[in-house]
Amino acid sequence: MNRDSFAAGERLVSPAYVRQGCEARRSHEHLIRLLLEKGKCPEDGWDESTLELFLHELAIMDSNNFLGNCGVGEREGRVASALVARRHYRFIHGIGRSGDISAVQPKAAGSSLLNKITNSLVLDIIKLAGVPAVTSCFVVPMATGMSLTLCFLTLRHKRPKAKYIIWPRIDQKSCFKSMITAGFEPVVIENVLEGDELRTDLKAVEAKVQELGPDNILCVHSTTSCFAPRVPDRLEELAVICANSGIPHIVNNAYGVQSSKCMHLIQQGARVGRIDAFVQSLDKNFMVPVGGAIIAGFNDSFIQEISKMYPGRASASPSLDVLITLLSLGSNGYKKLLKERKEMFSYLSSQLKKLSESYNERLLHTPHNPISLAMTLKTQGEHQDKAITQLGSMLFTRQVSGARVVPLGSVQTVSGHTFRGFMSHTNNYPCAYLNAASAIGMKMQDVDLFIKRLDKCLKTVRKEQNKEISTDISPQHITVLWFCFCKHPIMPS
Amino acid sequence: MNRDSFAAGERLVSPAYVRQGCEARRSHEHLIRLLLEKGKCPEDGWDESTLELFLHELAIMDSNNFLGNCGVGEREGRVASALVARRHYRFIHGIGRSGDISAVQPKAAGSSLLNKITNSLVLDIIKLAGVPAVTSCFVVPMATGMSLTLCFLTLRHKRPKAKYIIWPRIDQKSCFKSMITAGFEPVVIENVLEGDELRTDLKAVEAKVQELGPDNILCVHSTTSCFAPRVPDRLEELAVICANSGIPHIVNNAYGVQSSKCMHLIQQGARVGRIDAFVQSLDKNFMVPVGGAIIAGFNDSFIQEISKMYPGRASASPSLDVLITLLSLGSNGYKKLLKERKEMFSYLSSQLKKLSESYNERLLHTPHNPISLAMTLKTQGEHQDKAITQLGSMLFTRQVSGARVVPLGSVQTVSGHTFRGFMSHTNNYPCAYLNAASAIGMKMQDVDLFIKRLDKCLKTVRKEQNKEISTDISPQHITVLWFCFCKHPIMPS
Amino acid sequence: MNRDSFAAGERLVSPAYVRQGCEARRSHEHLIRLLLEKGKCPEDGWDESTLELFLHELAIMDSNNFLGNCGVGEREGRVASALVARRHYRFIHGIGRSGDISAVQPKAAGSSLLNKITNSLVLDIIKLAGVPAVTSCFVVPMATGMSLTLCFLTLRHKRPKAKYIIWPRIDQKSCFKSMITAGFEPVVIENVLEGDELRTDLKAVEAKVQELGPDNILCVHSTTSCFAPRVPDRLEELAVICANSGIPHIVNNAYGVQSSKCMHLIQQGARVGRIDAFVQSLDKNFMVPVGGAIIAGFNDSFIQEISKMYPGRASASPSLDVLITLLSLGSNGYKKLLKERKEMFSYLSSQLKKLSESYNERLLHTPHNPISLAMTLKTQGEHQDKAITQLGSMLFTRQVSGARVVPLGSVQTVSGHTFRGFMSHTNNYPCAYLNAASAIGMKMQDVDLFIKRLDKCLKTVRKEQNKEISTDISPQHITVLWFCFCKHPIMPS
Amino acid sequence: MNRDSFAAGERLVSPAYVRQGCEARRSHEHLIRLLLEKGKCPEDGWDESTLELFLHELAIMDSNNFLGNCGVGEREGRVASALVARRHYRFIHGIGRSGDISAVQPKAAGSSLLNKITNSLVLDIIKLAGVPAVTSCFVVPMATGMSLTLCFLTLRHKRPKAKYIIWPRIDQKSCFKSMITAGFEPVVIENVLEGDELRTDLKAVEAKVQELGPDNILCVHSTTSCFAPRVPDRLEELAVICANSGIPHIVNNAYGVQSSKCMHLIQQGARVGRIDAFVQSLDKNFMVPVGGAIIAGFNDSFIQEISKMYPGRASASPSLDVLITLLSLGSNGYKKLLKERKEMFSYLSSQLKKLSESYNERLLHTPHNPISLAMTLKTQGEHQDKAITQLGSMLFTRQVSGARVVPLGSVQTVSGHTFRGFMSHTNNYPCAYLNAASAIGMKMQDVDLFIKRLDKCLKTVRKEQNKEISTDISPQHITVLWFCFCKHPIMPS
Repeated sequence: MNRDSFAAGERLVSPAYVRQGCEARRSHEHLIRLLLEKGKCPEDGWDESTLELFLHELAIMDSNNFLGNCGVGEREGRVASALVARRHYRFIHGIGRSGDISAVQPKAAGSSLLNKITNSLVLDIIKLAGVPAVTSCFVVPMATGMSLTLCFLTLRHKRPKAKYIIWPRIDQKSCFKSMITAGFEPVVIENVLEGDELRTDLKAVEAKVQELGPDNILCVHSTTSCFAPRVPDRLEELAVICANSGIPHIVNNAYGVQSSKCMHLIQQGARVGRIDAFVQSLDKNFMVPVGGAIIAGFNDSFIQEISKMYPGRASASPSLDVLITLLSLGSNGYKKLLKERKEMFSYLSSQLKKLSESYNERLLHTPHNPISLAMTLKTQGEHQDKAITQLGSMLFTRQVSGARVVPLGSVQTVSGHTFRGFMSHTNNYPCAYLNAASAIGMKMQDVDLFIKRLDKCLKTVRKEQNKEISTDISPQHITVLWFCFCKHPIMPS
Repeated sequence: MNRDSFAAGERLVSPAYVRQGCEARRSHEHLIRLLLEKGKCPEDGWDESTLELFLHELAIMDSNNFLGNCGVGEREGRVASALVARRHYRFIHGIGRSGDISAVQPKAAGSSLLNKITNSLVLDIIKLAGVPAVTSCFVVPMATGMSLTLCFLTLRHKRPKAKYIIWPRIDQKSCFKSMITAGFEPVVIENVLEGDELRTDLKAVEAKVQELGPDNILCVHSTTSCFAPRVPDRLEELAVICANSGIPHIVNNAYGVQSSKCMHLIQQGARVGRIDAFVQSLDKNFMVPVGGAIIAGFNDSFIQEISKMYPGRASASPSLDVLITLLSLGSNGYKKLLKERKEMFSYLSSQLKKLSESYNERLLHTPHNPISLAMTLKTQGEHQDKAITQLGSMLFTRQVSGARVVPLGSVQTVSGHTFRGFMSHTNNYPCAYLNAASAIGMKMQDVDLFIKRLDKCLKTVRKEQNKEISTDISPQHITVLWFCFCKHPIMPS
Repeated sequence: MNRDSFAAGERLVSPAYVRQGCEARRSHEHLIRLLLEKGKCPEDGWDESTLELFLHELAIMDSNNFLGNCGVGEREGRVASALVARRHYRFIHGIGRSGDISAVQPKAAGSSLLNKITNSLVLDIIKLAGVPAVTSCFVVPMATGMSLTLCFLTLRHKRPKAKYIIWPRIDQKSCFKSMITAGFEPVVIENVLEGDELRTDLKAVEAKVQELGPDNILCVHSTTSCFAPRVPDRLEELAVICANSGIPHIVNNAYGVQSSKCMHLIQQGARVGRIDAFVQSLDKNFMVPVGGAIIAGFNDSFIQEISKMYPGRASASPSLDVLITLLSLGSNGYKKLLKERKEMFSYLSSQLKKLSESYNERLLHTPHNPISLAMTLKTQGEHQDKAITQLGSMLFTRQVSGARVVPLGSVQTVSGHTFRGFMSHTNNYPCAYLNAASAIGMKMQDVDLFIKRLDKCLKTVRKEQNKEISTDISPQHITVLWFCFCKHPIMPS
Repeated sequence: MNRDSFAAGERLVSPAYVRQGCEARRSHEHLIRLLLEKGKCPEDGWDESTLELFLHELAIMDSNNFLGNCGVGEREGRVASALVARRHYRFIHGIGRSGDISAVQPKAAGSSLLNKITNSLVLDIIKLAGVPAVTSCFVVPMATGMSLTLCFLTLRHKRPKAKYIIWPRIDQKSCFKSMITAGFEPVVIENVLEGDELRTDLKAVEAKVQELGPDNILCVHSTTSCFAPRVPDRLEELAVICANSGIPHIVNNAYGVQSSKCMHLIQQGARVGRIDAFVQSLDKNFMVPVGGAIIAGFNDSFIQEISKMYPGRASASPSLDVLITLLSLGSNGYKKLLKERKEMFSYLSSQLKKLSESYNERLLHTPHNPISLAMTLKTQGEHQDKAITQLGSMLFTRQVSGARVVPLGSVQTVSGHTFRGFMSHTNNYPCAYLNAASAIGMKMQDVDLFIKRLDKCLKTVRKEQNKEISTDISPQHITVLWFCFCKHPIMPS
């Protein structure tokens, strides 16, 4: 409503009340102005009213919402279903242009603003989450794996001779595939066992760099967030090796934004050595639906090059989700979530420790992993594999999601490469184990239910160890679950 | 509500009425069952009530919506914002698994069903739109260009020696970039002028194949839908060349599903020769928001290989949009849209012809292009370029979107390759022109408004030809618009 | 977004595009301003975007949506459920104040504006629907019957001696009850049979006025819209009697706004005689959910007196519904609906005529009833009542809603008054019959389905006339349906 | 989805996952079944998913949502606007039938169930809120005042001779008007001052009963919730008087459900004496939008008589709101709100006490009022009235809502009756004061902000006492606010 409308309103109801309402409107506008001017996540979350007003205002700046628009092109933002238009708040034109996913669209000023602001907010949050040195980032509506692929494809143009990617092993299919899809040959660096932890073998990395020659290496591809007992890679040292050898360094930080430790590693790596880009999932760090990632880095022009590699316009949906989420939470709300996650990690850790000891098992000592925990499953007797599989299936049918059992000796071939001890990040981990993680948004109730159900399942499994396998699930079902828990669930993303 | 609930309901209100209501429920269920059993698009569109019931039923099959779920993984479908959850109908887990975008997720039976059904519906629609021989397809939440890239990356593994892609020229940036991003060298085949039309130079293609050697060629990358005066490539002949030389053939069918002519070309190409995959935009053909594409083909295993190349889970948002849209429209609704588009094309054509003649211009004769039209802009006098730019900017500010003016002699370098006569698909088209297209969803009102506004703009431009340039727009503005109308708008996707 | 926000936006994306978006915003604002200034229904319907922007702008003027509000009263517009807040567009304070349902609330400038504008739009629509002389009206969130009660209660204060209400019989329970509830004694005037039609017995009215004495009569309570073969009351003549005797005149125009004939009667009545208020249903005339009525009249101060009789604040929900509906339709859209209804009436009439004749029945000749039709059910043989009931139940189970069968000789006592021939508006109508109506929003499909199903049912009933009653429905069911079709359905509102 | 659909689903994705999803569905259904069977508010609130599934299931039982329905009546639940349909979850038929607002509609089994269940839940909540003896209640979509009117109109038929209603004074316009509208003469019983409190003058009531004669008295109309320093009426004693004299007793319990004290008074009154019905607001007690009330009592047949007095169908909107709210909260959630309200009352009380003393004022001692508080405004010097008005206007413009200032000596005439000392419930209260209340949903933040702003305002007023009146607001504005704070705000409902 503009000034004339308010004046007309004053004639209909009391001027004093309309003025009061008009004043109230200004406080919404003030928040919007601050956001556009500063490009920072507001400290306090916005209420739905401000948020929807803002989205509405942006949407009417797109040509498909112009009242007098006539479209004679092949892409006019027409929508057949009102349900679809509404669920996208009438943002139809997506983000970016054919040349650049970060570019501005003439037909869609609103969507373009949405895109810019989202990237700006996300940058702000990455800084406060522990990487203040970051200078540039953008949201891309693709999985973390595909986003890594995009980074590798971008590097190809800068390093035409390179064929290899140095990759400290992590048993997560999409990490491996991201390199295969980009057309490179992953050089797997096996991890070393230090206590219970699996850590980066720096010497092996250095030796491989010498052996292959820096020019033949596209980049080092390291990982932060991962399942225990693997721990985040030694990022500082890797970054130094990269800097010294002139090799690019891409970090898979899939769900690491939620952990100040993972973020600190990146910040330090960039400070003392070389990190070209780090990639993180939107859904795993910001509690939005699956489908987006953030590509971030310390060099504007390189990040821009990546954004220019995406051919075509892209979905605005993940950007919209994270924008709504961050504006609703505010930076204080997000910090609170981070704090609670940390607390839940301690709680889960202590509860799992207690439970494991009561079954003569042990919580693996993995102090460098800030998110994932592992408890041994060694005392399962002769038919260990069977028992472990059964445990997995029991947890599944009891609606425990996200726990995974890791048996010994699983072998799997991914895109032609055979991994021994698959799922455990190493050829021969000393024992089978079960993973559980404390991820952002977890509640105490989740932990309590999990511990209670795990307790029940362990009890049942123990009882049945010397009997025939439980009839809890049909053989067909077991196959499915074996498939589900032993082959695939290794791939978290 | 189950049987017990209905029984309880009968005790509260009259049994006869509850039974009637229960009966009514069955008709919704019947539609849902048919869909799941047949996997075909219903003839008549569903009403919102059935649609939302169906989505709701699917959503509660995902673990994040289980009432008793406890999550201890790193990806549990938690959502921070209720607005976000609602706009996705509580589908949070995305589609696919790390190994395969078409795979089933144990945690998300509902999302998995949604994905399967959507792909099945889309396949059904491609058949009825003119490619009955298609056997397999999937929706991918990426732009057409990035989807083409994915096809090329898949082919790389089958043709490790190949470096080149044969590409009949089309001045659309993302087409060109899709090859660059995949790491290949596009071999541009210039078009030949036949009458007003620009058509595939088959001889040049054949010569190039001989020259480079089939094994060094990754594939032929042809195009159907495009801006007049270019017309769809000679797909049959290209397909025969590919079959004979054992070269894969990927078709960019960006907005061709809406045209029976484009679809017929693909059907014929596949019948007489070789087409490995054809890629189309979701938004341009199905009136949904930007962000998805369909990769389709005639060989299940190759299409599956492509789907397995996407590393990681992906956004379900484009699939959800097209599912809602197709169920709302029904196949009859979609056919009606196709029919109306064709009628609008005739109407636009006749109106534009009339107008052009009244200005001593001419509608280019491009009978092979079923979607786009071009009208000459030759009588703009001395300062032709200025006048054409001005026309473009005037249309823009008058809320005509999608019309583009193509001046003579524009030169542009894309990813290192210099295009002369950029935007016109050839080095030296005989005259400048203006494009307009009849795309799905266009209304008679769009045509009428466009003709009216164009008329006004032409009048003004004529008047001012001998004067100074209009002050309608500031110089800065003109630069922007020049940028907007002369450099980039060439890229429709 | 204010000027500063747009300026900030221009720095983020191109100024030219932001300006274009800003310009587009102005067209929405223009529509809103026009509405507030003129208070008239826009000719062309608004699109959802403008509508939601408008509602959003109004809502943030209410104190419950002030970002800095602190509430220390007993009614602060707090809402426990986000779903509830959203479905009301965050209008929580209702309309009116304790003293007057049309009054302005200091706490809720937005809701107050909503209320004023709605009443203004509705007045505009009543004028164009055929009563240009109307001067004042308001929406009240109560059924038509309760709204009539409110009118009678208001009149009580002006006519303290009056005990009776003169009421030309219409067999619709809530009409009768509206007088009983208000504490008055209805004086039933039996209708006279003219041809097939039942019409007002003017002489009986005049005689009753003489007999009881004008001062003892609260008002005449007449009816326009009704089931055939009754037809609208002779409003002009009744209005003249009222004027001459100084008796108020309240018209029940329940679903008459949709018929230009009913509206014309009111216009004429007010011109030549006296009509104090006429009351119409919101849902039946404006295709909104049940729950509201419009009280309208020709004398501002009397209408205001009625609005001041409602003690307390009231639901804004019916006002919001009709506002959204009228703004979506525009006056042109509403006129189109009126036109289509008229056409459907002709169509239903001709189809029903044809069908009735094929069964040796007859469409009753009721030219004065513009909405409802009746077809005789005389050839049902001996067990006529049974057959008629069976017909009713068959139509019900076949999802024909709104058709009602009227048997002979039904007797019912309502609030102590016994009606012979209940449902047929007269003690002894010559034959049983079936009613069908053409109401606003009816589609040709409704008519065709109805005729088809009625045909089938009549066929079945004929066949079974000499057999035992069909087992199509259980005895219990029949009782229910008898109850449903023979006792109650008489009450349309 | 039915069994066949699930079977089809199992063929599309893994049977094990579909079965898991199907199992999950059962937990939603279980909650729904429990609700329908028990008719009680669930202890734990439902999540949105269950809630929307339930509403959706109910809605498709209404004939307007039947896929094969054909409507030939005058009221078929057609909706012109999709926005309107959606916001009502497609419940269009309202509740009740022309004869009875609690009756079942043949056309709308779903809406009928909704109505029954809502009334059942509300009854459950009234019991747990402190009136376990209640036996019957129903939600009516009218303000508290109009609902009281309906009660009085019902009593009229049982007590045809009665003309008077005995009414212990409460300065709330709609209370008074509820009697006037019903056509009765209120007999005002002035309150007596006990300490700071204004309490029921029982002797005066008894004397009036004797004087007028029980048969001439329609009922006693008492009040629980009210602004301090008035306190809830002495309900037990009034109930005994009514029982002894055979006079009905109607209690205005406007916002009393939220206070266990008010509820206890009603429970006790009914136990030891006579209470025929008690009426409460939906919005003030259940945090839903304005527009509904609950009429409850201890005698099923009387409550049913009232429900049969409402002529016509009614809006389902208030019922839907309270249903959604109670299912979301669960009884535990509602109890938590009640508990928090009580705590906020203590907090507000202590903070206000502290503040008042720092200004040499006093918190009035009103221990019998569990909701509202009053702080004296006596030290405002000569121009006391001016100062008090100014204070009111300052609080208003500072977005403090619900606080009201009560000057001395205000006189107002309502429907012909003149009240001296209007707003203060008595002719001559010893001092001016300011009211604040702790109502359900109040947050600590509300209290803190209020205290802070009040502090500032008092400071300013003090400073300006000897100067001219502040220019904070224009004279016109003051008039408006005077109007707003001194005349009307007395009427809370």
